[in-house]
Amino acid sequence: MSKQTYQRIVLASRPTAAVTPDNFRLEQAPVPELADGQVLVRNHYLSLDPYMRGRMSEGKSYANPQPLGEVMIGGTVGEVVASKNPKWNVGDKVVGMFGWQEYGVSDGGGIQKVDTTHIPLSAYLGSVGMPGVTAWYGLNKIIAPKAGETIVVSAASGAVGSVVGQLAKLAGCRVIGVAGGRDKCDYVVKELGFDACVDYKAAKDAKELYAMVKDVTPDGIDGYFENVGGDILDVVLARLNAFARVAVCGLIAGYDGQDMPIRNPRAILVSRARIEGFIVSEHMDVWPQALKELGTYVAQGKIKFRESIAEGLASAPEAFIGLLKGKNFGKQLVKLV
Amino acid sequence: MSKQTYQRIVLASRPTAAVTPDNFRLEQAPVPELADGQVLVRNHYLSLDPYMRGRMSEGKSYANPQPLGEVMIGGTVGEVVASKNPKWNVGDKVVGMFGWQEYGVSDGGGIQKVDTTHIPLSAYLGSVGMPGVTAWYGLNKIIAPKAGETIVVSAASGAVGSVVGQLAKLAGCRVIGVAGGRDKCDYVVKELGFDACVDYKAAKDAKELYAMVKDVTPDGIDGYFENVGGDILDVVLARLNAFARVAVCGLIAGYDGQDMPIRNPRAILVSRARIEGFIVSEHMDVWPQALKELGTYVAQGKIKFRESIAEGLASAPEAFIGLLKGKNFGKQLVKLV
Repeated sequence: MSKQTYQRIVLASRPTAAVTPDNFRLEQAPVPELADGQVLVRNHYLSLDPYMRGRMSEGKSYANPQPLGEVMIGGTVGEVVASKNPKWNVGDKVVGMFGWQEYGVSDGGGIQKVDTTHIPLSAYLGSVGMPGVTAWYGLNKIIAPKAGETIVVSAASGAVGSVVGQLAKLAGCRVIGVAGGRDKCDYVVKELGFDACVDYKAAKDAKELYAMVKDVTPDGIDGYFENVGGDILDVVLARLNAFARVAVCGLIAGYDGQDMPIRNPRAILVSRARIEGFIVSEHMDVWPQALKELGTYVAQGKIKFRESIAEGLASAPEAFIGLLKGKNFGKQLVKLV
Repeated sequence: MSKQTYQRIVLASRPTAAVTPDNFRLEQAPVPELADGQVLVRNHYLSLDPYMRGRMSEGKSYANPQPLGEVMIGGTVGEVVASKNPKWNVGDKVVGMFGWQEYGVSDGGGIQKVDTTHIPLSAYLGSVGMPGVTAWYGLNKIIAPKAGETIVVSAASGAVGSVVGQLAKLAGCRVIGVAGGRDKCDYVVKELGFDACVDYKAAKDAKELYAMVKDVTPDGIDGYFENVGGDILDVVLARLNAFARVAVCGLIAGYDGQDMPIRNPRAILVSRARIEGFIVSEHMDVWPQALKELGTYVAQGKIKFRESIAEGLASAPEAFIGLLKGKNFGKQLVKLV
């Protein structure tokens, strides 16, 4: 709080195709004086997530676009450093949605106190936060896996995919990850315990990718958790068993507006598949149950996770652009303190 | 039964692209002698349906391919003309799956007696048969429309689509048909009571088709019954409201193997849509309820239907090829007697 100012990042312009650093602007702002009932939070970590790309554009989406000139939205974890609200004490650890900035002010709502005794603070932005609940919802409420089924998840080493796969393993499924690069695939199999992982970057075309997926799904695919879109979705559709379920969480390959067709929608009919898109923030009723289960698994070490941590708010744009290109390895965070 | 022979049509070869007449062969066969327990049925009408195209090809589908050299599968209605089974009497009107032939033999199973007092025999191959139940299942079990919602159905003048739309109107929905040509569209609106119908043949490209669909769906689309595939699916996906439901019954545009991509699958996520393929024969549990409702509506004149009737078994191949090209107008039948 030196000089009573802090840093924040606002949306300076909308991307025309790929996101570039000059879509963002770093600003200084005075640390606000608290009014009665307000709480000041020093953010420790900012979460970077693919959904933010969608908010940067105008046009039809499931949420309003991020306004220009305002602080980029984003989940944060931090610590109460000043309070004029009797419900909150200095030192409380909290999760909030303060966005890309070092401080946030709450009127006492919009923040949840978290227990860091057995779970690290940053995990509340990952496996025990929105990405974890996203995994939990898509897997349990849409795919609804049965023991013995084959479940495939793309972006398998990421914040969502890693939880999907570990939960599916705990449910007794055969679990296949799809990830970019040998390092990520090795991690998914050796550290997270997936049965196999397909390195999509090692396939020279969709036909070879199909052969690779077929090789590790000899009994077909019963459930697919879609984080990516593009070629892998086509390949998986062609491997679906009857009554397969596909949870569509992200279609990151298309965020920049490029064509990303499903080439063979007839597979939906052939497999009598159910494909369902969802946004986890619309299913708040499941969050308490999901967070309880996820927290227990993380505290027990049954769900492991990995983080990519960028240092300092100023590094957020570059880290976010890297995330959209798959350069991160595990949950992408920005350390703010 | 002159000369004690009858005609039947077998699959002579598998289509390499579009179906051609020489994929079929007309044969003469002796009318079988009945063994104890058997029933001989003279088929009056043969149903021609798009699913038959799928059976003609090898490769992964939801059903085994039609064997070469065997009678083409197909639903039939007819009359018992001889019986050595005490449960069946000469004169009984029955629905069966005797395929593309003038006679069929049953061991007493696989046929259902139908009442033609208030419902014409041929309707049991249409609105009160498999196409009707297909419409009923996709609409009620997948789309599950609520009064006031906007429901779109492609191939709207066809055997399935016409029932979908009339059931949706009875459910209090705004109903938009999609059909090829002004005559079909006029029929759908003026005779069947749809709110509007889009003539997809009048659109010079997908963009114009989108404008036409948008014009008649000012409040977006809540449910879509997919009989066709191709451009119209993309257009509808782009108009879906949040939590829309898409029942995928047929993707006829792609039966011949041509590319028929979904260009914008991101719409699934944006709308949190649910897309589900289904095969009505896998949901036999709903047939009694569906047929009871459909029969009541048809007898009351609340569900109207139209038939395209080809004369004589020899005309079946040409009529089937026409069906795949959308040349029929209403339920395509072949009159066999």
